[in-house]
Amino acid sequence: MTKPLKLDPDRLFPADERTRSITRALYREVAGLPIISPHGHTDPKWFATDENWSNATELLLSPDHYLYRMLYSQGVALDDLCVPSKAGMPGTDPRKAWRTFAENIHLFRGTPSSMWLGHVFAEVFGFDVALDVSTADLYYDRINEKLASDAFKPRALFDRFGIEFLATTEGPQDDLAPHHTIRDSGWKGRVVTTYRPDAVIDVEHEQFAGAMKVFAEKTGQDVWSWDGYLAAHRKRRADFRAAGATATDHGHPTAQTANLGYDEAERLFRTILSDSWTPEDAELFRAQMLTEMAAMSAEDGMVMQIHPGSFRNHNGGLFASHGRDKGADIPTRTDYVHALKPLLDRFGTSTTLSIILFTLDETVYARELAPLAGHYPCLKLGPSWWFHDSPEGMRRFREQVTETAGFYNTVGFNDDTRAFLSIPARHDVARRIDCGFLGQLVAEGRLLDWEAFELAHELTNGLVRKAYKIDQQAPAPIAAAA
Amino acid sequence: MTKPLKLDPDRLFPADERTRSITRALYREVAGLPIISPHGHTDPKWFATDENWSNATELLLSPDHYLYRMLYSQGVALDDLCVPSKAGMPGTDPRKAWRTFAENIHLFRGTPSSMWLGHVFAEVFGFDVALDVSTADLYYDRINEKLASDAFKPRALFDRFGIEFLATTEGPQDDLAPHHTIRDSGWKGRVVTTYRPDAVIDVEHEQFAGAMKVFAEKTGQDVWSWDGYLAAHRKRRADFRAAGATATDHGHPTAQTANLGYDEAERLFRTILSDSWTPEDAELFRAQMLTEMAAMSAEDGMVMQIHPGSFRNHNGGLFASHGRDKGADIPTRTDYVHALKPLLDRFGTSTTLSIILFTLDETVYARELAPLAGHYPCLKLGPSWWFHDSPEGMRRFREQVTETAGFYNTVGFNDDTRAFLSIPARHDVARRIDCGFLGQLVAEGRLLDWEAFELAHELTNGLVRKAYKIDQQAPAPIAAAA
Amino acid sequence: MTKPLKLDPDRLFPADERTRSITRALYREVAGLPIISPHGHTDPKWFATDENWSNATELLLSPDHYLYRMLYSQGVALDDLCVPSKAGMPGTDPRKAWRTFAENIHLFRGTPSSMWLGHVFAEVFGFDVALDVSTADLYYDRINEKLASDAFKPRALFDRFGIEFLATTEGPQDDLAPHHTIRDSGWKGRVVTTYRPDAVIDVEHEQFAGAMKVFAEKTGQDVWSWDGYLAAHRKRRADFRAAGATATDHGHPTAQTANLGYDEAERLFRTILSDSWTPEDAELFRAQMLTEMAAMSAEDGMVMQIHPGSFRNHNGGLFASHGRDKGADIPTRTDYVHALKPLLDRFGTSTTLSIILFTLDETVYARELAPLAGHYPCLKLGPSWWFHDSPEGMRRFREQVTETAGFYNTVGFNDDTRAFLSIPARHDVARRIDCGFLGQLVAEGRLLDWEAFELAHELTNGLVRKAYKIDQQAPAPIAAAA
Repeated sequence: MTKPLKLDPDRLFPADERTRSITRALYREVAGLPIISPHGHTDPKWFATDENWSNATELLLSPDHYLYRMLYSQGVALDDLCVPSKAGMPGTDPRKAWRTFAENIHLFRGTPSSMWLGHVFAEVFGFDVALDVSTADLYYDRINEKLASDAFKPRALFDRFGIEFLATTEGPQDDLAPHHTIRDSGWKGRVVTTYRPDAVIDVEHEQFAGAMKVFAEKTGQDVWSWDGYLAAHRKRRADFRAAGATATDHGHPTAQTANLGYDEAERLFRTILSDSWTPEDAELFRAQMLTEMAAMSAEDGMVMQIHPGSFRNHNGGLFASHGRDKGADIPTRTDYVHALKPLLDRFGTSTTLSIILFTLDETVYARELAPLAGHYPCLKLGPSWWFHDSPEGMRRFREQVTETAGFYNTVGFNDDTRAFLSIPARHDVARRIDCGFLGQLVAEGRLLDWEAFELAHELTNGLVRKAYKIDQQAPAPIAAAA
Repeated sequence: MTKPLKLDPDRLFPADERTRSITRALYREVAGLPIISPHGHTDPKWFATDENWSNATELLLSPDHYLYRMLYSQGVALDDLCVPSKAGMPGTDPRKAWRTFAENIHLFRGTPSSMWLGHVFAEVFGFDVALDVSTADLYYDRINEKLASDAFKPRALFDRFGIEFLATTEGPQDDLAPHHTIRDSGWKGRVVTTYRPDAVIDVEHEQFAGAMKVFAEKTGQDVWSWDGYLAAHRKRRADFRAAGATATDHGHPTAQTANLGYDEAERLFRTILSDSWTPEDAELFRAQMLTEMAAMSAEDGMVMQIHPGSFRNHNGGLFASHGRDKGADIPTRTDYVHALKPLLDRFGTSTTLSIILFTLDETVYARELAPLAGHYPCLKLGPSWWFHDSPEGMRRFREQVTETAGFYNTVGFNDDTRAFLSIPARHDVARRIDCGFLGQLVAEGRLLDWEAFELAHELTNGLVRKAYKIDQQAPAPIAAAA
Repeated sequence: MTKPLKLDPDRLFPADERTRSITRALYREVAGLPIISPHGHTDPKWFATDENWSNATELLLSPDHYLYRMLYSQGVALDDLCVPSKAGMPGTDPRKAWRTFAENIHLFRGTPSSMWLGHVFAEVFGFDVALDVSTADLYYDRINEKLASDAFKPRALFDRFGIEFLATTEGPQDDLAPHHTIRDSGWKGRVVTTYRPDAVIDVEHEQFAGAMKVFAEKTGQDVWSWDGYLAAHRKRRADFRAAGATATDHGHPTAQTANLGYDEAERLFRTILSDSWTPEDAELFRAQMLTEMAAMSAEDGMVMQIHPGSFRNHNGGLFASHGRDKGADIPTRTDYVHALKPLLDRFGTSTTLSIILFTLDETVYARELAPLAGHYPCLKLGPSWWFHDSPEGMRRFREQVTETAGFYNTVGFNDDTRAFLSIPARHDVARRIDCGFLGQLVAEGRLLDWEAFELAHELTNGLVRKAYKIDQQAPAPIAAAA
């Protein structure tokens, strides 16, 4: 017997009726506002080529580590889910992988994935029965059928979703051609890149050597000299701005920054390029480069995003067989107060620098991040993120940050996703939770009605526009870029 | 004037009526299910001899560090509470100790002890007046009278409580005779042991030398050679399995693991047995032994429980006068991400190993434990535990773990208690809190009714059965054990 | 158009009606009880001279780092807010500063400052329109007019606020004359000092050298010898007791304590006074001095307050231009379990020593502080404090501490403020939150009505009286003090 799928219109609102009715009114105000997605990992080629996606498994399951990590944790092999290994896509029939997913759908109960999936199935594909083992084929066939239609091409969905701004993430070694194709195509959708230079900054990154070579080629600079290396970053940042970028993104193991003199930095750079660097050298170089990137941001106005604290590729065996970004990154304890001081000593009072801090360690919300952002003019706080982009995680963020940093030192919501179809679902969850938080403040007499309405708009669209300089960025002339 | 004692049938349910009525329905489903207690510290001799307990003080107060640590913190001397010191039981009249307890009963307001005591007094002993200074004698006399009756013998209460499975904890140096007596007695109650080898693994344990001697005697192995030592563990694990054990239990100061080669491990073992080991050697040996125990579990199928992070015997003066387990263990900050990597590098993808992780450091729930258990097939999460086995603690556990690990990477409830009479109370609190959490998910449209009902059963009985292999363990032939 | 200002009589009460009505009844019991403020930073000269305050800006804005740090974080210059720098009060017109504040009042939405300001404006000054850019001048003029009246002199407000006890904080180098003036004046208000010796204990404190000189003068001791230094502390503590002090206060970077022998301590002291001390020496000396202060407290009965974990003067540029206490102190991760052990090994079981612990690191509530205070007789827990003195912060404190330490190991509320006019507002917020927490326990069947009423009184007045020995301290004869 199939179970019905029906989204509760009041879902995620606080249960208490007094609070719920305020929340409902707030949500009505912002539910239909455009989606601004300033930080994510969708593939720009989708929007450049606008080709149809292949099938449900390859679009929804294979690339989404939120989904397959949970199945893997319960003993399902990644091969059985069509997750590509270093050897390429496994031979598994995608329909069979979809059935395996459907059989295990109960594992997601109570997780944000369950909210997102329900929204995608009901709102994007129009299902009114739930996914389970009995409906797996029905789902698989109907999704594939829709994906083959014009209405489900990437640009059509982008427009249907009401997306106003979508940032992808590329490295200096990556090709910006898809972004140029998008801009040249005449399509009005605003898809921009973000400058993420980790692979040419982190000598412990397995792609470092290769990325440096491409970095040299694409910039024409001698990236093996300190001056040339910095010049190459400047050149590439300009290329990225030409491709619409308003921001940079830095995913370091820690938040450590450094503020070395020129000679010391130059010497460190030479060590990094030699064969004799230590892990401490690698850490110090990453630290110094955060400060160098801040210096460039103070010059060129690119907003700087720092998200430290992930122990990448924790599962050694899986990294060997499947490579990075396979759901095996685990958060670690992270310090900001000591780590950021060198950078802040140099730029803390800058009026042109803007840094958005993220964390995977929630203990720092009230202790470190809110006090830092509630003091330093250059600091803002990114939303609860990655493992914490859940209803509970978002509540904890607001409850622990607002008291000291207020709302105006935060920057709205980031979906941070590779799963394009889940973007409306994720923004919807965030709007519901934010309205619920505001509703509670009103119900407890801590905020007036009209203040809550103003804030609902700010949290949905106002703050993100300002923080990412979305209205400020002049559409630059398209430079000849590699 | 005496105050009435009356348990609120809706106690611990969320106050909001919408949520409360869903919770009530869920709780009705599971309130009467059998108790499965896979981790605890009751005394197997109680069930072996089935002798009556002596009096209220010696059963309820003297052994329960939850109670006497609170009284001690407010200046009551342990001697006045009949807490045994190294010199033995103090001369205090147990009735006088009980009165002291009653006089200070207000100290427990708002604590889980207060919930548990209320349940024990009302449900087990049938009191309808509250314990305070005016009823202290009434309580003392009536409890003692009941304890002297057949209906209050250990086995009778075990049956009355609806306990299906009760694990105690013994070391390799302990006598398993009580467990064999229980099995031989024809009584149907399933009381099993758990293998807890800390005293022969932790050279900093004050009983190490003595325990090693007994370990040698009981196994007939040369425990002072590395090979003999490992063989002795294998032998003793088999003895424990024969006494019903399905699990091992490891209470280390940290979660550190190591993965040394044979020669290095053998050398370290020799250092540990010498007089010249350092604290770092002791830590490394404990770390290595966690991995050795994992290796044996991967062979023999025993579920491995790791609960790090307690600073044992913090109060030096009290340890000198009263010894260990006197309420002076204090939690410390605990890392899992780096600490477990050596073990996980070797066994993380094993399909036969199962490890249940506990913590005393709640900051790791969302940051470390849920991400680890939501990825590695061999890892599951034990419930909120010890200092955190409170209503608020259980809520924090569910709120911070479910979003990333889901429900199916958790293992149900453990009471972890020495206080046998409080077992039904503790399981009842857990069921109420779990149903309240599920009720909130339903009220917020995050879970459907029928899913919540299924989950209520899983959280109460389903997951614990699977995690501890309770139905799997074949009743082994009883080996000749010391 | 002006917006109305009207305080919700049910503000901060839980929204759920069942819980709210219980909370309302509890709050009615304690709303009018006297204010006991045992820890704060108001200026005793106000009460000694009883002169009128100058204007709204200089009373409410310039000294309150809660307010100007938020404005600074959004790019407002401190000069524009009349915050004094090392060069003195900036030339900004105070009315203009007040307007800048009013223009940015939205930044405080959702913060405790917004609750406190609303209370001060409505209850102390009688406004019924909200502060914004349109009412800035109205506010400024009316506040100044009131401040010039007799009814708004410091002592008149003290009496009107119903303050029974108010502690200020002074160092050994400070003049106690204002306190003696107060006592000699015949005014009945009880304003007392607190002994805070950081400036003569912390060699890294920028005022150390100067403070030591005054310390020597005021005590007549050879403070550059170890014995003389300790004797000077004893002498000065006696002076402070004579000025009404019942407590000492220690704001160290960490909670580290030490327990050195006499010779070692004496040698360390000489190192500290030399030019060759290291940061480790400075830390060890602070650690040793906590234990020395505990020893003196065990003798003279002064309650000891320890509040570690602030990274002082984090913003190097701002410290250079404006000095300390300018909103640039940032909390850091703090350990208590290892740090306090040396002190506790010596005094943990003392029956005359009483230590109140504070934290800026909420992760220690459930993990370290509640277990420590729930065991050691000499330890009590100070309330959620500084960055965490918000409604959410207070709830987290109760939720994470009560389960293990109960209510009776806590000490009521501290306002810890320099903002005298906000004292009633802050105590009102605390009473509302505490009543809401108790109300929730009743609504969930975890506490009986009459217990909640008793506890409401304890949390408001009972526990603070006992913890700070407010009724115990015999009004000492006024010693001749510098």
